Amino acid sequence: MSKVRVAVAGASGYAGGEVLRLLLGHPGVEIGAVTAASNAGELLGTLQPHLLPLADRVLEPTTVEVLAGHDVVFLGLPHGQSGALAEELTAQNPDVVVIDCGADFRLEDAAAWQQFYGSAHAGTWPYGLPELPGNRAALQGAKRVAVPGCYPTISSLTLAPAVAAGLVVPDVVVVAASGTSGAGKAPKTHLLGSEVMGNTSAYGVGGVHRHTPEITQNLGRLTDAEVKVSFTPLLVPMSRGILATCSAPLAGPVTAEEAHAAYVKAYADEPFVHVLPSGQWPQTQSVLGSNAVHLQVTVDEAAGRLVAVGAIDNLAKGTAGAAVQCMNLALGLDETTGLSTVGLAP
Amino acid sequence: MSKVRVAVAGASGYAGGEVLRLLLGHPGVEIGAVTAASNAGELLGTLQPHLLPLADRVLEPTTVEVLAGHDVVFLGLPHGQSGALAEELTAQNPDVVVIDCGADFRLEDAAAWQQFYGSAHAGTWPYGLPELPGNRAALQGAKRVAVPGCYPTISSLTLAPAVAAGLVVPDVVVVAASGTSGAGKAPKTHLLGSEVMGNTSAYGVGGVHRHTPEITQNLGRLTDAEVKVSFTPLLVPMSRGILATCSAPLAGPVTAEEAHAAYVKAYADEPFVHVLPSGQWPQTQSVLGSNAVHLQVTVDEAAGRLVAVGAIDNLAKGTAGAAVQCMNLALGLDETTGLSTVGLAP
Amino acid sequence: MSKVRVAVAGASGYAGGEVLRLLLGHPGVEIGAVTAASNAGELLGTLQPHLLPLADRVLEPTTVEVLAGHDVVFLGLPHGQSGALAEELTAQNPDVVVIDCGADFRLEDAAAWQQFYGSAHAGTWPYGLPELPGNRAALQGAKRVAVPGCYPTISSLTLAPAVAAGLVVPDVVVVAASGTSGAGKAPKTHLLGSEVMGNTSAYGVGGVHRHTPEITQNLGRLTDAEVKVSFTPLLVPMSRGILATCSAPLAGPVTAEEAHAAYVKAYADEPFVHVLPSGQWPQTQSVLGSNAVHLQVTVDEAAGRLVAVGAIDNLAKGTAGAAVQCMNLALGLDETTGLSTVGLAP
Amino acid sequence: MSKVRVAVAGASGYAGGEVLRLLLGHPGVEIGAVTAASNAGELLGTLQPHLLPLADRVLEPTTVEVLAGHDVVFLGLPHGQSGALAEELTAQNPDVVVIDCGADFRLEDAAAWQQFYGSAHAGTWPYGLPELPGNRAALQGAKRVAVPGCYPTISSLTLAPAVAAGLVVPDVVVVAASGTSGAGKAPKTHLLGSEVMGNTSAYGVGGVHRHTPEITQNLGRLTDAEVKVSFTPLLVPMSRGILATCSAPLAGPVTAEEAHAAYVKAYADEPFVHVLPSGQWPQTQSVLGSNAVHLQVTVDEAAGRLVAVGAIDNLAKGTAGAAVQCMNLALGLDETTGLSTVGLAP
Repeated sequence: MSKVRVAVAGASGYAGGEVLRLLLGHPGVEIGAVTAASNAGELLGTLQPHLLPLADRVLEPTTVEVLAGHDVVFLGLPHGQSGALAEELTAQNPDVVVIDCGADFRLEDAAAWQQFYGSAHAGTWPYGLPELPGNRAALQGAKRVAVPGCYPTISSLTLAPAVAAGLVVPDVVVVAASGTSGAGKAPKTHLLGSEVMGNTSAYGVGGVHRHTPEITQNLGRLTDAEVKVSFTPLLVPMSRGILATCSAPLAGPVTAEEAHAAYVKAYADEPFVHVLPSGQWPQTQSVLGSNAVHLQVTVDEAAGRLVAVGAIDNLAKGTAGAAVQCMNLALGLDETTGLSTVGLAP
Repeated sequence: MSKVRVAVAGASGYAGGEVLRLLLGHPGVEIGAVTAASNAGELLGTLQPHLLPLADRVLEPTTVEVLAGHDVVFLGLPHGQSGALAEELTAQNPDVVVIDCGADFRLEDAAAWQQFYGSAHAGTWPYGLPELPGNRAALQGAKRVAVPGCYPTISSLTLAPAVAAGLVVPDVVVVAASGTSGAGKAPKTHLLGSEVMGNTSAYGVGGVHRHTPEITQNLGRLTDAEVKVSFTPLLVPMSRGILATCSAPLAGPVTAEEAHAAYVKAYADEPFVHVLPSGQWPQTQSVLGSNAVHLQVTVDEAAGRLVAVGAIDNLAKGTAGAAVQCMNLALGLDETTGLSTVGLAP
Repeated sequence: MSKVRVAVAGASGYAGGEVLRLLLGHPGVEIGAVTAASNAGELLGTLQPHLLPLADRVLEPTTVEVLAGHDVVFLGLPHGQSGALAEELTAQNPDVVVIDCGADFRLEDAAAWQQFYGSAHAGTWPYGLPELPGNRAALQGAKRVAVPGCYPTISSLTLAPAVAAGLVVPDVVVVAASGTSGAGKAPKTHLLGSEVMGNTSAYGVGGVHRHTPEITQNLGRLTDAEVKVSFTPLLVPMSRGILATCSAPLAGPVTAEEAHAAYVKAYADEPFVHVLPSGQWPQTQSVLGSNAVHLQVTVDEAAGRLVAVGAIDNLAKGTAGAAVQCMNLALGLDETTGLSTVGLAP
Repeated sequence: MSKVRVAVAGASGYAGGEVLRLLLGHPGVEIGAVTAASNAGELLGTLQPHLLPLADRVLEPTTVEVLAGHDVVFLGLPHGQSGALAEELTAQNPDVVVIDCGADFRLEDAAAWQQFYGSAHAGTWPYGLPELPGNRAALQGAKRVAVPGCYPTISSLTLAPAVAAGLVVPDVVVVAASGTSGAGKAPKTHLLGSEVMGNTSAYGVGGVHRHTPEITQNLGRLTDAEVKVSFTPLLVPMSRGILATCSAPLAGPVTAEEAHAAYVKAYADEPFVHVLPSGQWPQTQSVLGSNAVHLQVTVDEAAGRLVAVGAIDNLAKGTAGAAVQCMNLALGLDETTGLSTVGLAP
């Protein structure tokens, strides 16, 4: 079988670098153009020295000319640039698969987009979280994919079984601790090592983080009840990984065992989502570099709440792993090709 | 003025070491005996090399004979050992001030003690969190002090103004990210550097952590409504610091500005509690080594919740700083003597 | 082709876990018995939750009975246990390949062994560093392999071209900064996260570290001159990775360009050793999880020294990766099977 | 006694922030103007939230007008700006003490300055390392002080007794691992938390780091022999602290005990320099936030080298602590006023 020819736009950043890392282990693809904006002309080996087999590649500018001629194009671009580029690529090749790691096409609600992003809504593409009901079918054979945000991915997967089964009132509280790579590679003072090491902070508190409406959208598809999401992201001193602590009021009597059983059942056929044995709680180290999702759930009877915790690698399953998983679905490959559930620990 | 003579039992651990660090900067005390259990006979300089002025001190065994003859005795001992020791010390000197950094005398509810600690309730001592209503008076001139747990300190201070002012229904959710020093210095596999660096995990999920009833007790004194506490501690890759993210449903309409004003007012006279200017959120790095508490609050209208975040150094204000603060109150000194609101950053 | 059946003894530790992680990605092997000492009877999923595909495996005791019946046995055992076990395994199956991740069979000099390990010398097995002259041939088809120590691997590879080409007087100084996983998973106070985060320390200073004679042995094979090694290991706050800074007096005039060219030439045919372009210096993050070695070299004319820096992942190329590489050589497989030069960054 | 009025220029950076942190604990000073360049007009509480007592201070521009009227002015400015500013301040007040945390006036050798800094040599001020022979007298009553670089401080102190006593041939090798705060607060990609956590790297290899001639200058004052310095700095994943591993060939027979005794004797009267008991090695955590220097030395007989290791806090004794220590000397105060030998650990 001839290999699928793939291009990566935004290859100097963390998302693009992680897409390339995964593609290097994917047996069905050939890596074509790698592009960047301000870093165009530089060696990939200088900017991404961990991608040794690609060290001699020169970053090209992110243009239609460079990206045309590929079967699949991954986009890791600033907000607002993906739509026009995708249209031009399709004009050249109607079969091209465009997988956007950015936020432009994740939300269905134009008003929510306007509120949180402050610009006109570009539209909605198939949402790249195949583990939520209904999504996988839309991704199979898709020509466009909107890769979910890292926080929505783990928050939604951690809460979905409880919401879908009606175990909880969907008035949820999510506090998600993230490594710094989710904030990107552009240099900012508050992301300096000196600032983040030995330090934990909250940001985007009070429902203002842009991932909030995306979590609400995902959970809203699972229930007829009104969904409320209180979402607080934390920045913790590690490069990768998100641990989401999620809770919601119990809708009625349920034991920890019943909740656990509901989670096991919900994800029984999912290759990447793993509900840990009762009593074992997720940790981010276990999923680093992998596409695995580790989950656990219990019931706090005194507080009247179900509490669930989930862990992913924000760059892998939270971004680039999901992107490759969706590429596999779009191309009709085995969904797990080139992806692993083995983490790098310690 | 002659100096107060102070002994520290458990001086080889993190809490005892931090008490000593603070006492070295306290102008009114003279450090007498420093004691340990298995480390008795060793040099303090070997075990706590950062305490250079005490490097030549030899750790003595933790006995009544060694600890007698001091005006103040700090106890950093395993559960169940503080009570009998305190009685024997008082028998020798009725004026001795005993400050217990352990949990034995924090809870009023014997049933809660039994449920969470699994042994008979030893009693209740004045609770060393002077910033909560009613506590300071009981600590002035006290001969016994129960130093609060680190999580209850920051969780209670972060939620108290909202609960006391009736801004929220006291059905609270606390997710608190802690550095590893709160877990102590005894070697355990899951606390190894290789396990905690690059890793975030949840533990004691579902209301089973022993600090849960202490938070409930503190908030319960502020309201007639039933208090529910959903508490989840996280272990994050840093040595010191706790960041508590706390939320509760709004009891009625309140703006972020009103909530902020309530917090500012509640702590206006407190020397160590600082409500940050609106829009600036606490980070643990800012309070490292200090007795300061940094707080911020907002309102998430869409979620219908008040969200507040607080930061302390778990070893300082969370343990040893509170202990010294309470010693000052017990002895009639200025409450802030030897304590600082200046953190060590970056 | 039928798969090679492999057992791993010491599977609950860091070295054993890493061997398993790599074997899970190796197309030619089937993982048989996984064994442990005190952890026998426990689930691998509890102890190594990152190895999700093996989560349901039960650790068996490390006995000949359990380990027999495999084609290859990896040993990650305490000093002194490997020899007898290997003999018994061979008695049952003369073709068994035994790959020892421990130190027992690395040194040729019985006196050096006695001096540094304090026990009788067990013997010498083929030394698992194929990149040094003469070693690869001895490993092809070998039935025994002594996997090198992590520090000797990177120190030797970083210095070898300079010593072999006579660019330097082999009176070398090595200062190697290591992550904590090299110290193993047994809980010790000085390895606690609270002790290692925010901290750098030196240990084994003054030539007393056990890896010193191993470095001397490796360099001694490359020159007729007397080799002197001043080796100082540092413990730095990260889980994985070693960065070795190595220098030696220039033997005569040589430019930085000539030194670089000598390094490039020396490793031109090596699949895992990469000399970076001039001016780019190695960093440990680039090699995490991979079998890659990143090197750079320059000349300090004012100081009259050649200075070279090398980076590896201590658990991968420094231990388990080398073990798998040597297994490939022993079995006649392609040397790179199941191994990667792509690191996990950031 | 009336307090000394002090200004800090460059108060938004790490060095300036640390000077302010120490001054807040200094009983003899009053903090006057705090100034910045691009951050002028902002609240100090926003930029340095750990300095709570100064949170309401507004940063003023760094001008002569603002800085005039103070008894002491600390300068934390980019290269090349200190000289003219100091002259103007002296023109207004001949008694003003100017303490420069920058590099402009550290080197005596104009050619070395030109080689390493690429601009004209500005001159030489009294060198703020009082622990080296001859320096203290020049600092007492000085009106100008050049605060040493952080690497030269610890490298020189770690090697000085051996060089001065002629125990070694002054052909030294220094490998110094530093936290990231030494690289400053200006945002750069390679200093991002995502890049430095879990990572160790070397930089400025081969004698090109600007601190090299400063180390050479310091050691050169101690011996008539030619001094050669091979200096390699490492960036390790922590915010603060430097650990310098230093070695040199033995000049003749010397035992570890004799070397230790020489170090103890050399620093017997120094309040901040502490030679640890034999067998205990320095770690950076022990000196964090303090002005202490921890040293240890041994002899590697097989390698024929003396090996010494030293630890400081790069921002404290490495910069701001030295600056305050020199202010004390300049003003005739007790040299230790406002400074501590107690570190913040864990």
